[in-house]
Amino acid sequence: MTYCVALKLDEGLVFLSDTRTNAGVDDVSRYKKMFTWDVPGERVIVLMTAGNLSITQGVITRLNMALEAASEDGEVENLLNVPDLFRAAQVTGRLMRDLVGKHGEAIEKEGASSGASIILGGQIKGQPPRLFLIYSAGNFIECGEDTPFLQIGEIKYGKPILDRTIRRESSLDEGVRTVLVSMDSSVRSNLSVGPPFDLAVLKTGAFQMGVQRRVEDSDPTFRSISDGWSAALSRAVNDLPRTDDWFGGSLESE
Amino acid sequence: MTYCVALKLDEGLVFLSDTRTNAGVDDVSRYKKMFTWDVPGERVIVLMTAGNLSITQGVITRLNMALEAASEDGEVENLLNVPDLFRAAQVTGRLMRDLVGKHGEAIEKEGASSGASIILGGQIKGQPPRLFLIYSAGNFIECGEDTPFLQIGEIKYGKPILDRTIRRESSLDEGVRTVLVSMDSSVRSNLSVGPPFDLAVLKTGAFQMGVQRRVEDSDPTFRSISDGWSAALSRAVNDLPRTDDWFGGSLESE
Repeated sequence: MTYCVALKLDEGLVFLSDTRTNAGVDDVSRYKKMFTWDVPGERVIVLMTAGNLSITQGVITRLNMALEAASEDGEVENLLNVPDLFRAAQVTGRLMRDLVGKHGEAIEKEGASSGASIILGGQIKGQPPRLFLIYSAGNFIECGEDTPFLQIGEIKYGKPILDRTIRRESSLDEGVRTVLVSMDSSVRSNLSVGPPFDLAVLKTGAFQMGVQRRVEDSDPTFRSISDGWSAALSRAVNDLPRTDDWFGGSLESE
Repeated sequence: MTYCVALKLDEGLVFLSDTRTNAGVDDVSRYKKMFTWDVPGERVIVLMTAGNLSITQGVITRLNMALEAASEDGEVENLLNVPDLFRAAQVTGRLMRDLVGKHGEAIEKEGASSGASIILGGQIKGQPPRLFLIYSAGNFIECGEDTPFLQIGEIKYGKPILDRTIRRESSLDEGVRTVLVSMDSSVRSNLSVGPPFDLAVLKTGAFQMGVQRRVEDSDPTFRSISDGWSAALSRAVNDLPRTDDWFGGSLESE
């Protein structure tokens, strides 16, 4: 499995991915699932992958091959010359559809899943930041205003915290802390999601990689967020309205 | 889908179930999934069901038929005369296995799932409280000390809060508030989990139904817990250690 989450806030985009892949619980490895491209001052693109690793690696390899080919023949379409991020999502989706079409049946025959999904986002000069979720079939959706986040992989454990706290107006720092909590909840409940994590933050209008950092499980800031969160939740439960009135006080300890 | 959760705390057992069932998103109904039996002062048993409704209703009907039969012939084994809750789990599991064996293939042929699961718990005089999770195959596990809760149905959204806050030593009131938050998180993320909810609380050593209540979505206490939780989470994120040191303060708003 995998867990990747991206936020689209007014102040910018936040991306976080784990690094665990597995083919059964007895075959666990560490693979990077976040990939970035930029032309500082002009555009910056971040891509995160989940699902069948052979499919998603195939997509990344072909995206990079197009970049190389373009260095010899400027006409070759690639992530650094597409006119907008919508086209970047189309190109990426088409590659994924082609690869699933080519290999999907053979993969499924072996009892594995050929499913994969990709989050792609960034900003190109003169345009607003955009964020997409691309499916195996090559189709995609764009992150809207009502739900300012996208998730792929093992999304359920980490979703309630996003549902409750993330709004477009949330600050980038608040966003970073929230995705770390969301990731930590997923790691605690699903062995197939694991550290270290890759974090990227793109400030709106910067047109370059803002922050890019590998967060180790032992990182003191991450540890204090993880531990602090458990303590904060216990306090929060304690601060909730009591339910005694339902029971005539019968729940009080004797 | 469904969501049911039960806690095994030192002070007692807490049970909470939703009431939504569905066969596709266009066929949604309300069914009770919590069933109780008691002989006040001697034993009390609570059972919650998830999965294929025809299977779980079949189990409940047969458990009640055994009770009726026993009123004519005291020898018939039933929930009110089994010597311990382990045997109650065995009897219930055997009924489920028999029903799945009888109808499972035909159900699956129609494209539906015959899977089901049951949480059964309670206390019999002279014995400690016990809590079991029973699977379709009739096998079961008992709730232990390290993880003092069991869940069935759509378990993922509501699990992180349990992982972080529930310990054996938690009070019953804390337990009730936590399962309500856990349920509320599931309802927000999965349409197939829905109100009203059935709540039961058994105090250790009481040997009778302690609290039993249907909690409507409009219940003011439930509403204040749901709203209070969102506010508390936002505050909790705000109180977490800041991540600025990773970025040289570059995440500050300008």
